[in-house]
Formats: sequence, structure tokens, C-alpha cells
Amino acid sequence: MSATKQATVLQPRVLLTGFAPFAGETLNPSWEAVRMLHGRRIGGHRIVARQLPVEFGTALKALRAAIRDTRPSLVLCVGQAGGRASMSLERVAINVDDARIPDNAGASPIDLEIVRGGPAAYFTGLPIKAMLAALRDAGIPVEVSQTAGTYVCNHVFYGLMHALRNRKVRGGFVHIPYSPEQAALHPGAPSLPVETVCQGLRIALQVALATGVDHKLGAGAEH
Amino acid sequence: MSATKQATVLQPRVLLTGFAPFAGETLNPSWEAVRMLHGRRIGGHRIVARQLPVEFGTALKALRAAIRDTRPSLVLCVGQAGGRASMSLERVAINVDDARIPDNAGASPIDLEIVRGGPAAYFTGLPIKAMLAALRDAGIPVEVSQTAGTYVCNHVFYGLMHALRNRKVRGGFVHIPYSPEQAALHPGAPSLPVETVCQGLRIALQVALATGVDHKLGAGAEH
Amino acid sequence: MSATKQATVLQPRVLLTGFAPFAGETLNPSWEAVRMLHGRRIGGHRIVARQLPVEFGTALKALRAAIRDTRPSLVLCVGQAGGRASMSLERVAINVDDARIPDNAGASPIDLEIVRGGPAAYFTGLPIKAMLAALRDAGIPVEVSQTAGTYVCNHVFYGLMHALRNRKVRGGFVHIPYSPEQAALHPGAPSLPVETVCQGLRIALQVALATGVDHKLGAGAEH
Amino acid sequence: MSATKQATVLQPRVLLTGFAPFAGETLNPSWEAVRMLHGRRIGGHRIVARQLPVEFGTALKALRAAIRDTRPSLVLCVGQAGGRASMSLERVAINVDDARIPDNAGASPIDLEIVRGGPAAYFTGLPIKAMLAALRDAGIPVEVSQTAGTYVCNHVFYGLMHALRNRKVRGGFVHIPYSPEQAALHPGAPSLPVETVCQGLRIALQVALATGVDHKLGAGAEH
Repeated sequence: MSATKQATVLQPRVLLTGFAPFAGETLNPSWEAVRMLHGRRIGGHRIVARQLPVEFGTALKALRAAIRDTRPSLVLCVGQAGGRASMSLERVAINVDDARIPDNAGASPIDLEIVRGGPAAYFTGLPIKAMLAALRDAGIPVEVSQTAGTYVCNHVFYGLMHALRNRKVRGGFVHIPYSPEQAALHPGAPSLPVETVCQGLRIALQVALATGVDHKLGAGAEH
Repeated sequence: MSATKQATVLQPRVLLTGFAPFAGETLNPSWEAVRMLHGRRIGGHRIVARQLPVEFGTALKALRAAIRDTRPSLVLCVGQAGGRASMSLERVAINVDDARIPDNAGASPIDLEIVRGGPAAYFTGLPIKAMLAALRDAGIPVEVSQTAGTYVCNHVFYGLMHALRNRKVRGGFVHIPYSPEQAALHPGAPSLPVETVCQGLRIALQVALATGVDHKLGAGAEH
Repeated sequence: MSATKQATVLQPRVLLTGFAPFAGETLNPSWEAVRMLHGRRIGGHRIVARQLPVEFGTALKALRAAIRDTRPSLVLCVGQAGGRASMSLERVAINVDDARIPDNAGASPIDLEIVRGGPAAYFTGLPIKAMLAALRDAGIPVEVSQTAGTYVCNHVFYGLMHALRNRKVRGGFVHIPYSPEQAALHPGAPSLPVETVCQGLRIALQVALATGVDHKLGAGAEH
Repeated sequence: MSATKQATVLQPRVLLTGFAPFAGETLNPSWEAVRMLHGRRIGGHRIVARQLPVEFGTALKALRAAIRDTRPSLVLCVGQAGGRASMSLERVAINVDDARIPDNAGASPIDLEIVRGGPAAYFTGLPIKAMLAALRDAGIPVEVSQTAGTYVCNHVFYGLMHALRNRKVRGGFVHIPYSPEQAALHPGAPSLPVETVCQGLRIALQVALATGVDHKLGAGAEH
């Protein structure tokens, strides 16, 4: 067994992605939070942080390349959800792009499949109810979300789950609010500091790595 | 050809369902709107209205029985979404029950599949973008929704699409706001009169019956 | 006693005002509702409807002229509050103009007194708690509002109460939601049909005319 | 001149108040933020922090006693506004108590004057537009609010301005969001960390102490 292979065995990895800024913002809190964890060890895993572009197609290529490079045992993608007040553990990704605003490359796909002929949706591979309970106990605003939208975040989430469909690697997606600095320019918008998000991601990853079967904990919505 | 069969051929049908009251309400505006259209003719089709119970499992049995009885060429299920301000054309149903509040039979399933081993989701079978455009043009508040929740409405929507999966019958789901009478008891909650909803459903059905390929019209969400 | 004077005595009047369209809208539901009541009799009073311009200063001149002309025993001014879901019975008008958007004449006053040296605020002269109870009982979405904003509506409300300060004429202000036709162009915005608002105004006026001492009914806000 | 009097002259003071927990909460972020500033020096002033009870009447007695004790040159009262997303600089206090929920002593006054025969309202004595600009520049979510409600916060704000009406001491009120720990138990509610609020209060006080004439900066509302 080569030294490299040994190292891989001894140091399992988590791939953690954030996005580039979009929609006129100068920063993206998902990347700010994620990069603070780069190189850290959580639950016996080394965190590898990567930034994805906010571009349909290109974002997924970058994600797949990062998966090939890092051979992670778990992948968590993080994206900005301006207007939401809590960390949102996404339950499901759907096979459609429908862009209300153009992506960073100017593309605005409408009602296109992400994977031609792919399943309508993939559920998250992460124990979101156990993560919900742990974050709430830690005093971090959190909720389970029933939709990741139809923009680049959902695109990446769906593409991630499709890429992992035949592997033992688990994956999932978390949306986060604006940072306070961003909210200062969006009057009335809720926010969560990058440090709080960073702490929340650390807890979320610890729980995800340690939990086999998810908890039975209600977190549904009537509509 | 028997007289009955002839009648069926000459009079294609639309099955339109609403729900019983739930969550302490004394009426359900979905049923109030739907029953006003019972027996009417829209786009050459006779409307058959049926009420479904707000009960996991039982609701789907009632829906499947109504489909058997009426042999519709199109099925539209309608449900109340207290707190929403517009008629919501649902894009996708997901294969999970997660009840925040008990149903009318006292059941609160958590993270159970609706159809064991069924696909994670079904997309609507209706041209929701064409319906969106027509309703907006008619001055009726309307939006495309990316989640029908995880309660009895999503349960019925998913079960409907599963029941229709190998047939030529099209189906879909529309959520509607409280009626003004209900909103009067929920301070600050938005509403839409049953008459407006009824008019909206009529337009939605006309468009659904007349439209083959849906319009390319953006109605997505960033998250 | 002259015939005219007799007529005045026999036919007491209510002055009911709505506003012209503003902020890019093609109609203002306050005027649409108000003009439907012009000439009607409510509680023994003849309704006189007048439209006010959405212009600081000019609106108040028009209001004072209408009061001189009609010699009403009660004045109710009605304005559009896009984004609110209920009829809002305004509790208080404050002595400040602070325009977030220009008025219809292009003026954007910032932190100017409406009446130089006038009191900081006037409370409504109408029994808003009795009106609240009656509207709720009639199934019309309604709330008491603790702020009428700092734009032309508050300007008119304050100017009205200042004009009536030494008279026996009572006055007040009601904000109303978008009409459904407007909300169709503001995705996600709540609405109330002009007919419902019209019916609500009729009830509100009946109660206002018939009620001396207001009800003791909580309708406060923590913040 | 006695040593004590000299000390007073040399060390002007700011009185900063927060509230006790209420409405079932175990802490009140207004007090948590305020007490972190106790004893600090800001703009040449010593900060004296005091906690007020969430009780109509008693809260005002405690405030007036604190003013007598500390002889401040500026008073800022801070209160929790669960559901708001930003620090809210209150523009105006109105002369009415209308409690939707009982205070901590069980009292629920409805439509009672705070000061019998007092003016309908007092405007803040602080330069809230200059404070708004400074907080926004510092990246702290902030807004001007046109209503402080009708509960104990408005009660204290009105009582404060009444107490200061004939003095050269300036005063005002700021509402703050839930802390993240509180929001974790109110799904979907926005929050701001106590540390961020604390930093915001420090900036707000610096600006308030240094600003004579307020900025001309629009921060109004249409309704």
C-alpha cells in the first residue's frame, strides 16, 4: 500500500463547498463560513473547503472535480439564502432549473432538467433531524426546509446527489441567511453572523459523521 | 356502443377535489370553491367535485375511488394554505409524510414514505406556467410554488401523480389562501374570497384543458 | 329656516375620501371603494366621496376644501397600504413627513413638520375598537394599526385631525390592502377585493356613527 | 465644591437601561447587551446600566429613580422586539397602554393614558438618522421604526420623554431582535447576537453624544 493511499485511509475527508458572490453582493457568507473550516479536523475528518461559481453547469463541473480530487467520505454544500432567518437543512433537490435572475455567466434557464432523464428528485443523504436537534440545542437558529429553490443552489444539490447515487459517500445541502453586513444593506432582512454559521456547520458535520439512522423528529410543513 | 359509454365519450370529465376543514377551522375554502363548480361545464368537460378527508391514507383511498368512479381526463386537487396570499400552482410532490400537527384522525406520521419504494418526487402534470400567465392576466393573485409541504396536501398530490403515472390522465395540485372570513380570525393573515378562487380555478382548468406544451415562462426561486 | 338649511339638518353628511393612484399603480383601491359609496345613505347620513391627490400639501388643501363644502358630521379618509393583508384602523397620526418615495408632484420631504409647532401626534377620533369588533364579526380581515407611516396618508390623517381639533366633527383614517388585480402584479402580496373593502367601510361607518364611547377591547402590539 | 460634585462634573454619565425577561423567555437580550457596557466609557461619558421590570407603572418608577440617582446627560432605553430583524431606532412614543399579553405583574391595561392629560406623543430626543447612517456603515442591520408598540417598551419610552420634557437631558429608545439562542426556540424568527447589539449600542451612543443637529436622511414608510 502506497504512502498516499495510507494517508487517505488514515485521514478521511469532508468536502465542504461555498459559493462565489452573486446578485450584486460583494461577498457570499457561505464561502466566508466554509473557508474558516478549511484544514480543520471534525469527527476524525479533515475539512477541505472549495468555492463553487454561481453558474449553472460550471458549478457542477467544479463540484465533481472537487469530489474526484478529495475523495471525501461526506460532502456538504452550503449556499446563501437571502431573506431566510435560520440555517436551513434542505430535505430535497428537484430536477429542474428555473432561474428568476441570471447566473454569474448570464444564463437564465427555464424549466430545464439538470440531468436529462434523471429522477424528479433526490432526498438529502444527511440525518437532518439529528442535525436539527443538535443545532437547536446549541442555540443556533435552524429549520428543515422543504425546498432548495430552482436556482444554482438546487442545481448543485441535485447534481451532488446524482453524482453520489451509487456510492457510499453521503451528501447534503444547507442554506444560510445573509451576514449582518449584508443585511445592513437590505433593510429589514434577517441575518446570522458568519461565525455563528461556522459554529453551526461544525456541529452539523459532527452530527452527520456520527449518526447512522436519523432521528424521528417532526419538522414538516402543512404547505 | 351503450348509452352510458356514449355519454362518457360525449361528456369528458374533470375531477376536482377540495378538503374537509382541519386545524380547528369550521370550513375549508378549497371545498367551498370546488363545490361551486360541481356540474359546470368547462372546456367541453363536466366538472365533478369531491371532498377528501384530511387524513393520511384515507384521503388517498377516497381520491382513488373518485378517479375510478368518474374516469376523468384531468384531475385537479385543491387545498388550503393558511398564510399564503396567492393561488399557488404546485410544481412538485415529494414522497414523504412529516406532520407538524395531527391530521383529522389524530395521526402524525414522521418521515414515512407515501408509496413504499416510490420515486422521490413527481412533477405536476399540468401546464402551470400557462396557467400562471392566464391567471395573472385575469387579475388573480397567483404564483408557482416549489413545495406543497409534507402534510396531507402533499400526500394527496403525490398519491395522485403516482396513481396517474401510467395513464394519459393529467393531474396537479393548487393551494389557496384563507377566505376573508377565516382571515378575520387570524389577525394579519392574507386571504382570497372563495368567489375569486372559484373564478381562478375555472380559468386554470380552461388553460389546462387547452394547453399541450407548457409555456417557457420563468417562475423560479433562488431558494 | 331656509330649504337648504333644512335639508342640511335633515341630511347630515359623512365625508369619505380616497386617493389617486401612486407609485406606478394605475388605480388606487381606496378611491375605487370609496366612490362606490358616494350618494349612499348610512346610519342616516349621506355619503359624499372625494378623491385626494397623492401630494404633500395639496392633499390637505383639497381635504380642507371638501370639509368646508360638505360640512360633514364625520370624516373618514382611506388610503392604500400595499403589503398589508387587512383593513387597518389607524390609531394615531404623527407630525412628520418623511418620504421614502417621491409623491405624485415629485416632492420628497424629509423630517418636516406637517403643522409647524403642532402637537407631536393626534389620536383617531373614531371608536376603532368597536369598529374592529364589528368588522371581525362580519368576517372581514381587520386590525388596529399603531402607525400610519410618514407619507401622504399620515400627512392627510394628521392634517385632518388638526383641522377638526376644535370642532365636534369626528375623523379618522383606514388603510386598505391592494386589490387582487394589483396583487396579481406584485407576486406574493396580500389583497382584499374592492367590494369587500366597500362593505367593510359601510360597517365601519355605521359603527362609528352609532358609537359614543369606544369598547374596551385589546388590540395592542408589544413593539 | 465637594469631591462628589466635582466627580460628577468631570464624569458625565449615560443611563442605559434594558428589561427583565418576559413572555416566557429566560433572558432578555436588551439587558444582556446593556450590562456588557456598564462602567465603560463612550464619548467621554461613563455608562451606567440598569435593568427595568416588564411591568406597567413600576418600570417607569424604576426609570425615574435611576435618572435621579445617575443624573445622566443622555438616557437610552433598550427593549426586545421578538420578530424584528434589525436594531430599530424608535421615532415616536405614544400616550397609550394597550397590552396584548399581561405584563410580568399580570396587568393588561387597555387604552389607558400613560400620563393623564399628557400630549398624544413625544418624538425621540436622539439623532436617529445620524445613528442610522453610522450603524449601517458599520455593517449592523438597522432601521428607523415608526412605532414602539403599545406595551411596556412604549410605556417606558413615553414616560422617559415626559420626564425629560423640561430638561436638557436627551433620551430615546431602541428595539432589538431576539438573540440567536432565543430564535433557536422560535422557528423562523430573525435574530442578532448580543455582541453585535452591544457593538451597535456603543456606536449609537457615540453618534448620539457627538451629534447636535440630526442628518437629513430619508427613513420613512408609506404606511
